[in-house]
This record gives sequence, structure tokens and C-alpha cells, in this order.
Amino acid sequence: MTAERKGPLIVAVGSGKGGVGKSTLTANLAIALAKKGVKVGLVDADIYGPSQPVIFGTQGQKPQAEGNKPIPLDSKYGVPHLSMGHLVAPGKALAWRGPMAAGALGQLVEAHWAADTEVLLIDLPPGTGDVQLTMVQKFKPAGAVLVSTPQDLALIDAARAGQLFDTAGVPIIGLVENMSGYACPSCGEVSDPFGAGGVEAAAERLELPFLGRIPLDMAIRQGSDAGEPPAAGDGAMAEPFLAIADKVQAWISARS
Amino acid sequence: MTAERKGPLIVAVGSGKGGVGKSTLTANLAIALAKKGVKVGLVDADIYGPSQPVIFGTQGQKPQAEGNKPIPLDSKYGVPHLSMGHLVAPGKALAWRGPMAAGALGQLVEAHWAADTEVLLIDLPPGTGDVQLTMVQKFKPAGAVLVSTPQDLALIDAARAGQLFDTAGVPIIGLVENMSGYACPSCGEVSDPFGAGGVEAAAERLELPFLGRIPLDMAIRQGSDAGEPPAAGDGAMAEPFLAIADKVQAWISARS
Repeated sequence: MTAERKGPLIVAVGSGKGGVGKSTLTANLAIALAKKGVKVGLVDADIYGPSQPVIFGTQGQKPQAEGNKPIPLDSKYGVPHLSMGHLVAPGKALAWRGPMAAGALGQLVEAHWAADTEVLLIDLPPGTGDVQLTMVQKFKPAGAVLVSTPQDLALIDAARAGQLFDTAGVPIIGLVENMSGYACPSCGEVSDPFGAGGVEAAAERLELPFLGRIPLDMAIRQGSDAGEPPAAGDGAMAEPFLAIADKVQAWISARS
Repeated sequence: MTAERKGPLIVAVGSGKGGVGKSTLTANLAIALAKKGVKVGLVDADIYGPSQPVIFGTQGQKPQAEGNKPIPLDSKYGVPHLSMGHLVAPGKALAWRGPMAAGALGQLVEAHWAADTEVLLIDLPPGTGDVQLTMVQKFKPAGAVLVSTPQDLALIDAARAGQLFDTAGVPIIGLVENMSGYACPSCGEVSDPFGAGGVEAAAERLELPFLGRIPLDMAIRQGSDAGEPPAAGDGAMAEPFLAIADKVQAWISARS
């Protein structure tokens, strides 16, 4: 598989820091793109903390294989996906050194994706280690989406991740601000436990597109824990993901 | 350096998932222990997302070296510390494969710590990769503290990290619940954007001590971003860290 290969466009979703909602964004972005008619697959490359089986409600399922290649799992949301979490027991540590982790990434990316798959979203682990290096060097994504909370500490790490893509010549599609504003369930007043506006300001400073913000909301956390991603529904919490999917789809169309 | 070596007791602070407040806990736990008279040093082993220079307000400082070994930086909080963040420019990605990352960990742990250092707290990166494996295999910590938010997705990853320590024979000192309850700054009502009680329940299930909970609070985030860790002050936000430090100190005393 090289940059010249025919096949799905690879879009990486990264963050410098963990716990900023990267997996939640990736799942909901994939579902929102599928809703718009894009044929999308999802690879959970967060090998040390695979969240997609829980988010998609497919934990415990084992992918079949055809000629050594795993067949992605279907989901009720129209997004075939594969995760290291499907290959190991829950609570079982994937205590792997880098080369094994990088090899596992290859298995997932080069799985039996349907021939008409247009876009493969990759949920990267946080940081800038072996999996990310293998991703950019071997599988050269067409573009990358960066996620951060507005907190300074998260932004610093997001800049680091952005630099990794830059250096590798992977264009950054844009930045997403997550956990942006929390409406008190009691009085409705919105406050900002993680700050506000920092990601949009960082996008301006770095001259990168700002793709949108997603509020901190219990419905998103509960949906993620329960295998009911909000983008699949028609509640208010689907909207920010659909708006971001519009921009990513526009980027993809402009590219092809 | 082996398990038999004389020197500081190594206590690792780990989490399966990133962004759960591990760095904030490590810094404030170190400061709280120092307040109680414990001679404590801190190693920021989160090589891909080093946060301690920002939390301690020492970003931009360069550690001196003596005979190839870096000399830990002082801080106004009585906690000498060293971080990969001190060795690279901000926003510069440490795009290192595993062996380099593991080598860097060795440099930090085997630095010029004062001879009377009793405890060395290690802020581990999230996950179960090269740095964690080198940590448990080469530097064999005396014990580990695990941090998680109450969210199911974070708890699953925390269990994975716990299993890594277990397998390596590193005793788990206990679990800390972070981002537990958020008081609306407008009406004061406490709600739980990340759920509540999940970590204490997990500790019971796993028959591990529960060390305490830290609320989601803007003062903690702002303090962490501004180099003013709350444990150093005498505000309400110092208390949960001091209470956790009491339990860790008791564990250390019982051990020696």
C-alpha cells in the first residue's frame, strides 16, 4: 500500500493529548458522513486504549477473516469498523512494544474493506509515537483532523501532533474544539470547565481551518458509553457532528 | 539501577486513558507530600505529551548536567523535577519510536536526584507501550497509583493499565477518581458530566484501595495552565490532594 494506491482516501483523526474526545469525534464523524451517503470505514488504531467497540456497541464480537485479512464488523450505523479491541479480551493489556503496535496498525488498515469504500477514518492513539510514525510514513493519509479541548495543556500537545503531520507532508483539514462549554443541567447556565475558544484562536494563529466545536454534554458521554453515538440520532447533539462532517466532505470533494 | 538498588522509592502514577488528569494528580500529589515533609522528586515520563513544565511553571528552563546526568530543576513548590518537555522546544513533536522513548525514560530516572530523595513519583504516559514496559521491567516501581474518570470508557483503559502492573508484580497503592462532580459556577448545583462513583465501584470490584476523588473544577484547570498547582495553596482545591497524599504516605510508611 503506497501513496499511489487506488483505494479509500485515508483521513487520520489525531490529538496530541488523550482524553480530549478523539474517539468520540471519529465515531460520530464517520456516522455523520455515512448519513450523507459517503461510504466510510473506520479503523481504531488507538491500540493501547481502543474505545470504538464500546462506542459502536460491538464489544465482544470477533471479526471473521478471509485469507489472513480480517473482515470489518458491520454496525447498525452504516460504518464498518475494526479495532484492536475486537481482538483482545476487555481489561487485557496490550503491552506491546512499538514494532508490534505498528504491525497491528497495518493489519487493520489493510483489512477486507469493501471495494466501494471511499473514506477510511483512522482513530489514532494520542501522542507522536510508533503508530503515528508508521501511519504517516507507510500509509500517508490524504489529510488529518486534529482535536483538542480549549485547555492550554491540550493545545500544546495538539500543536505537537500537528507538527508531525506537517513534517510528513500530510495536510491538516482542520481543528475541532471539544468539551467546549457545559450547560448546567440544573439552571441551564453555560460555563467552561476546560476554557473556551482556545482551539479556534489556535487555528487562526496556525492559519488552519476551524471545523467547529462540540459541547461537553452528558448525552454524548452516556451515548458513547452505551453504544448509542449521538450523531446517529436526531437530537441536538447530532448537529455539531453533522456540521463538522459537512466541512470534511467539502474538503474531500475539493480534493478529488 | 535494579530492584535492589538503594535510593528513592519509585511510585508510578498511571492511567490507561490520557486526559484523565494524571499529570495534574502527579504534580499536586508531589507538592502535597513535600508539604508533609517527604523528600520527593518528580519525573515526567509522558514523553509524547509532557505537561509538568507548564504545571510547575518551569517551561523554557534547561536543566544543567553533571557528568552526562541532568540535574533536576528546582521549583518554588519544593519538588525537584525533570521532564522531556525541558529538553525540546514547545510545539516540537517528539516523534520517537519506542527504543528512543525508553532510553529517554532511563535518563530522567537516573538523573542527579539529591541523595536524600525518599520518593520519586513517575508521571507515566497513558497506555501500555514501550515507556510503561521499560518502567516496570527495568525500574520496577515499589507501587503504582491509578487515575481514572468515572466514565466507563476510561475505566476499561484503567483496568488494562492495572493489569500491566499486576503482571509485573507492581503493587497497586490505589485508585483515584478525577473529574468527579462539577459545581455550576452560576447556581452551585453539582452535576456529573463524566459520571460519578465509577472508580470507587471499580476499586471495590478489583479489591483495591480507593484513594479519593477530585472534582472537576475550573480552579484546578486554571492553576495547571498557569503554573500554580492548587495543592500548593490553601484553598478548598488543595484538600482532596492532601487527603490522597495522606493515604500514599501511610502506604509508604507501612512498607518501610
